[in-house]
Amino acid sequence: MLLISSLQNPKIKFLHQLKEKSRLRKKEQKFVIEGKREIFLAIHGGYQLLQIYYCPTIISNEDVSAIIDNTSSSIDIFEITTEIYQKLSHRSTTEGILAIAKSKEASLDNLDLDNKNPLILVAESPEKPGNIGALLRTADAAKVDAVLIANPRTDLYNPNIIRSSVGCVFTNNIAMGSTAEIIAYLNHKNIAIYGAALQSSENYYTQDYTKPTAIVVGTEDKGLTDEWLYNTSQNIKIPMSGVIDSMNVSVAAGILIFEAKRQRDFVV
Amino acid sequence: MLLISSLQNPKIKFLHQLKEKSRLRKKEQKFVIEGKREIFLAIHGGYQLLQIYYCPTIISNEDVSAIIDNTSSSIDIFEITTEIYQKLSHRSTTEGILAIAKSKEASLDNLDLDNKNPLILVAESPEKPGNIGALLRTADAAKVDAVLIANPRTDLYNPNIIRSSVGCVFTNNIAMGSTAEIIAYLNHKNIAIYGAALQSSENYYTQDYTKPTAIVVGTEDKGLTDEWLYNTSQNIKIPMSGVIDSMNVSVAAGILIFEAKRQRDFVV
Repeated sequence: MLLISSLQNPKIKFLHQLKEKSRLRKKEQKFVIEGKREIFLAIHGGYQLLQIYYCPTIISNEDVSAIIDNTSSSIDIFEITTEIYQKLSHRSTTEGILAIAKSKEASLDNLDLDNKNPLILVAESPEKPGNIGALLRTADAAKVDAVLIANPRTDLYNPNIIRSSVGCVFTNNIAMGSTAEIIAYLNHKNIAIYGAALQSSENYYTQDYTKPTAIVVGTEDKGLTDEWLYNTSQNIKIPMSGVIDSMNVSVAAGILIFEAKRQRDFVV
Repeated sequence: MLLISSLQNPKIKFLHQLKEKSRLRKKEQKFVIEGKREIFLAIHGGYQLLQIYYCPTIISNEDVSAIIDNTSSSIDIFEITTEIYQKLSHRSTTEGILAIAKSKEASLDNLDLDNKNPLILVAESPEKPGNIGALLRTADAAKVDAVLIANPRTDLYNPNIIRSSVGCVFTNNIAMGSTAEIIAYLNHKNIAIYGAALQSSENYYTQDYTKPTAIVVGTEDKGLTDEWLYNTSQNIKIPMSGVIDSMNVSVAAGILIFEAKRQRDFVV
């Protein structure tokens, strides 16, 4: 096992850059995963691990072996010092292990949609990694057939998304595309589009989501763009009766998706 | 108008401490509000402003006057320099105004519950200010009759709660107390207690929330304490079918509260 003890080691520098730079992740088609649970979820989600970096003062050999036993044989494994681990890790409650994995393409062309009666969550340009994480947790809990991210502002493998989704970024069926591409995709598949919006909208609970359905949410500050609003089958709204009328986007998505689940008797 | 230009000014030091220290807020029964919108919402919520600090290079005289016109006459107003404002303010998109306001007691004894058929949200020991903020936004949107915080870990006037609630901390009817006190209160008022929990629970959408109802959520990591579980009328769960089964607490609360709203035909 190779021990890396210098912060100047090129592998360590690369790891650090890969965490920080979306552009590098895209170019290299690689990203960093931190934490045991997240690494297991990535393996479970069919991600290919390329390298593992672990800190033996923090993580046990058994835990490292358990991970390695679940990966393909061509993985490179490195020991790192506590100092390096602390420099690279994001968390205060650290787990002593990082991995580099191969990105998935997450294109609409590759999307596997085998359910004939799908329920899909679409988020347009979600801004905060924390909101994307909460959306992905909700989508996992509801086991929606796909999560589509329209006009994304960040790549999927941003460390803050991985962390705030508690690994749900690996368990969901996710595709990204432009709003135009996603609208074309949904229309082609005859999936009804329900856009969360105040304009020309009906109360969400009056609509029928038992047929192929996509529920689309926009940003908290601006809502959906006109491009979506011109192309929805129906706009829907959550009636708000408070002083402020502002709901967290992941809460709104949860209310809408679980109303659809309720109508579908929670059949997966 | 008194201009304060020194960071060593005792008023500025006090302001800074009041933002940082929960204990000082409790002792003084005062807290700091940052931002125009938040200050207006506090006035709207019946809070008494004691002092205003504004930075004339950032906020216009008209905006300051509009706030002062809505407050009582006994308010002290100070001009501060840009340097001081930047030192005191929390936000990057600053608005040039801070206020010190008088705390409300937020005790169960003072809780004004005039609806004969109330819908109440209870959160036990919510941990993150961001989660409390999202809960309060949902509670405002649903116009629940009260939000009760059991065994709070922080005071209500933590700057991160004010900010993440986008001021909903001022528009909701909030009380805090121990779990025992809140259970006694709900029982005394004959309000049914639905605890979000996996143990001995029914699917949330099978229950009737059209009578006086409290929906109780616990922490994301540990759920509700036994003290709640032994005292619920019924435990309820959101069926989860994903890999991870972990939902953001404010999303879960939103789903439960809005199912109750739906059953009540959104009548306020």
